[in-house]
Order: sequence, then structure tokens, then C-alpha cells
Amino acid sequence: MSLLVVGSVAFDQIETPFGKSDKIVGGAGTYISLTSSYFTKDLGIVSVVGDDFPQSYIDLFHSKNVNTEGLEIKEGEKSFFWAGKYHNDLNSRDTLVTELNVLADFKPVVPAKLKNAEIVMLGNLSPDVQLSVIDQMETRPKLIVLDTMNFWMDIALDDLKKVISRIDVLTINDEEARQLSGEYSLVKAANKIIAMGPKVLIIKKGEHGALLFNENEVFFAPALPLEEVFDPTGAGDTFAGGFVGYLAKTNDTSFENMKRAIIYGSAMASFCVEKFGSVRIENLSETEINERVQQFVDLVQFDISL
Amino acid sequence: MSLLVVGSVAFDQIETPFGKSDKIVGGAGTYISLTSSYFTKDLGIVSVVGDDFPQSYIDLFHSKNVNTEGLEIKEGEKSFFWAGKYHNDLNSRDTLVTELNVLADFKPVVPAKLKNAEIVMLGNLSPDVQLSVIDQMETRPKLIVLDTMNFWMDIALDDLKKVISRIDVLTINDEEARQLSGEYSLVKAANKIIAMGPKVLIIKKGEHGALLFNENEVFFAPALPLEEVFDPTGAGDTFAGGFVGYLAKTNDTSFENMKRAIIYGSAMASFCVEKFGSVRIENLSETEINERVQQFVDLVQFDISL
Repeated sequence: MSLLVVGSVAFDQIETPFGKSDKIVGGAGTYISLTSSYFTKDLGIVSVVGDDFPQSYIDLFHSKNVNTEGLEIKEGEKSFFWAGKYHNDLNSRDTLVTELNVLADFKPVVPAKLKNAEIVMLGNLSPDVQLSVIDQMETRPKLIVLDTMNFWMDIALDDLKKVISRIDVLTINDEEARQLSGEYSLVKAANKIIAMGPKVLIIKKGEHGALLFNENEVFFAPALPLEEVFDPTGAGDTFAGGFVGYLAKTNDTSFENMKRAIIYGSAMASFCVEKFGSVRIENLSETEINERVQQFVDLVQFDISL
Repeated sequence: MSLLVVGSVAFDQIETPFGKSDKIVGGAGTYISLTSSYFTKDLGIVSVVGDDFPQSYIDLFHSKNVNTEGLEIKEGEKSFFWAGKYHNDLNSRDTLVTELNVLADFKPVVPAKLKNAEIVMLGNLSPDVQLSVIDQMETRPKLIVLDTMNFWMDIALDDLKKVISRIDVLTINDEEARQLSGEYSLVKAANKIIAMGPKVLIIKKGEHGALLFNENEVFFAPALPLEEVFDPTGAGDTFAGGFVGYLAKTNDTSFENMKRAIIYGSAMASFCVEKFGSVRIENLSETEINERVQQFVDLVQFDISL
């Protein structure tokens, strides 16, 4: 299936207890499309950067078959920049700098070639930007997946609810699921959120794994217990990229196949956190990916006959 | 396999956001032995109560085939009493009252009949009490499982390390694993703790499931996502009771069988939290237990062929 990825392509500067990065390429759109490219060669990105964005990274996208016709380059402007510092437990972070730059008035334009994409992955962006992408599609995609965050629940809840009502799969973390639903129990939260429109909800719990809900079923994917987490930046987007990439590759959006897709997403995310930024997911081999997925199989498989 | 359970038998008074209990029967020994009794009929408990402890509850133990020869009743003294209040998220609680009473100078005496038990489950108690039980065994049990908590790490670390060096399986929660090892990463913590003696470490993560480590392998058991958690008291002990009960029933202490045992423990714990105290685990049917275990199977099973 063809895949359209919409999300920020940007610069990040990251500080963890283990070190400090230079200004490196980041952004949800970067992580998602790089990760998806391991599974499908029929994908494109819609995003915006300034003329400070390195051509070498656009070349990297091309080398991975990511169509960049929809990656607008604004002359004389600067790319989105975020700087943050993680606390010692790596579960929380402080934002040090946010410079919206080109993202401040981002009006996504979906190129003709991508207007019939069968899967649309909307990375975390303002809900009205996400909505505008859906409106530009010529045919209703087979699957629309949307990621968002608490920030939009705080300042644009009505717009967010509007876009959520038009998608198929929502991915948020546990705190966001609680905020969006007003329910502490994640089971109750999932019921309420599914009633808002999406057929499937993915609740990301970071080092505690992820839950996949539809109206009647629930599936749990663990996170791999790791010796070291070096930098969590982009793990959620990498997870989403593995999820939609696997669905696109297998041409199957059933709940059973989403279980497999969420395991692939978790495996890809477990690579992402091993190095700064997107470094680790820029060059992975099929063997590495398969071995990592096998570790997830070994981690949770047991044999009980009732 | 025969099973010896050592742990407190006591009174609890519990306040949760959903209500307040009377003074009800609790204690690690109570939860563990009640839960184990669903899996094996060859078990006994070693503990101590005062003469305020209800005969009806001792009758309940007998109805479940729990041998109470080792349950000392101290005339003129009072049973251990704990009162606590859970916070709104149910993940943390304040202790309101702790009256040690008969537990203050508990000297466990293992009855002759239980001195050759093949599995010994040492519930959370002072490490020197746990050690004294091991010393009274006539033959080295096939499996010694020990539960403990941060309190003993704070005030009796040397004794705790001594008893840990003589057991096979240690069960603690994630924060305790970090405290005992000085490592934040649970993988590193597990390596260090296994080097202290136990062949197997179980790290309990409450609503986030449990990890089972040996020197070379790791297994993850999820917790069941529940609509309501009414009262978490005793969940960890119920988990341990299901774990050792299943091992005793199946007469198999291999790592593969421990994976199944941890799923049974998790299933039993998911019942425990549905009502105050031990109420929910006093009367379960085999059908209910099997249906709950099936929910765990459904929750994590997926089919990926690499």
C-alpha cells in the first residue's frame, strides 16, 4: 500500500545524562518516514523546512525511496528548532528552546502523486494542519493514523476532536489518554476515545510497552528491557513509522495484523533509543530488524493449553 | 510438590477512593496460602496470630486444605494490625497505623510434617525470621522463593543479603530492584541481583506487569488492563501464591514452566484487586481462573513467522 507521511522535519539539540548532541536532524516526519522506508518503497512525505536544512539529509530520504515532492523548502527562512534536556530517569524532560520558524504558518500541500495514498500517517502537528491534509485527499485513504499530544488538548481541543472523528487509528500516551477521556482507567479511557471516532486506539506507555484497543479487543506489546536507553527522542515516532510501514508492506489493516505491526513498531523504537536522534535508524539491516523482532517473540511467548 | 508458606496472618483496615473496609483479615501469609490452595492440596502455613484472630478464618484455611499446625495462636496477645489509605491513583498509599503485636518477637517454628516441603515460599518478613525457617528445613527444598521490601533494605541489608544468597527466586518491585542493585536499568539491576545468589529474579511492576529474569533469559508477563482496580492490597502476595501454587501443582521448576506460573500469578492477582482485601480470592471457581488465564493468552499472543 502507498503511504503518505505528514510531520515536522526539523533540527533538535538534545541533552541526556550521557551527553549533548550537536544541532541534529529530527522531527516526527523524519523519524516516521525513515522507519517506514524499511518496510515499503512507495512512500512520500509532506512537510516544510527552511533553506538551512542540509541537502545531504534530503539525499538520505531519496536513498530510502522517500518521495520529497511535498517537502517544501522556504528560501530565506529557518527550519523548526527544538532543544531539550532529559532528566536522569529519561522519562521526563525540559524544553529549553522552541523556535517554530517555518512551522509557524505551515500550510501543507499534498502533491498530486500522493493524493491517493492508501495509508496516511499524520504525525504530531496542529489539528487544523492535520485536517487540511485529510481534506486534500482525492479518495478516502484505507487507513488514517494520527498522533497528537497533550499540548493540542490544552489549546485546540475542539479542532482536535474534529480531526479525531475522521481518522481510523489514534496514537497517544497514557497520560494523554487520561486527559482526553477524563478517565483514569485506561480501559475506560479507551472506550470513551473509541466512541469519539477512531476504530482503534494505541496507548503508548514508553518503557512499559503499548496497548492496542478496538471496540471489543485489547492487545499488549511490551517494550524490550534494555541495558541502556541513550536518548528517547523520536521513539514514539519511530514506533508509529514501524507500525504504518508494516501495515503498508503487508497490505492488511486487520486488527490481527495490527498486533504484528505494533510489535514491529516496538522493535524499531528499541533501536531508536540506542543513539542520539535518528542516527541508529538511518542504517539498519533486515537481519538486525528480524533479530530484534525475534527478541520480542521470545520475551512474551509462553505455551499454556487450557 | 509440597508447599510451605511463611508470612504474616493479620488484620488490615483499608481506605481506597472507593470506600473504607472494616478491620478485615489480611497479611502476606493469608494471601499466599489462600491463592496457592487453588493449585495444590499439599500445603501448610507457618505464622503467628493473637487470640483475637477469628476461628472462622482458620476454618476457611482448613476448608482449603491449608495445614495450620504451624500457625501459632498466642493467648492474651493481639494479631498484627495495619491500616492504610490509598491515594487517588491507587499506586501509592500512606500507612496510618502499624501495630506489630505478636509479630514483634515472632520465632517461627516449622512443624515436623512441613520440614521436608519441596517448595518454600517466604513472604515479606524480617530477613532473620526468613533465615530461621531455611535453617529449620531437614532437606534443602527444591525451590525457595523469597519476597521482601525496601524497609528491610533500609534497616537490615546485611541480613537480607545473607538470606538472598541462600534462595532460588527473589520477588521484588522495580524500585526495590533499583535500590538493592544501585542500577536504574532493570536489566543491569537483574544481572547484579542474580550475582548475589538467586538463580531467578521476578521484578513486579504492578499495573505494568512483571519481568522474569535468569542469567541468560528474560520473560515479560503483562498485567491485565482492568476497568476498575478497587483495592490493590495483597496483589503482590496473591501473585506469589499463584506462582508457587502452579509450580507445586505441575511439579516442574524449569524456567519455561516459571513463565506459565507467572501468568497464573498475574491472573490470580487480577482477581484480588477487584474487591477489598482477600474477599475475591476466597471463592474462585476453576472455570473463572481458566477464563482469566485465557484473557492473558489473548492479550499477548501474536503470530509472527520470521
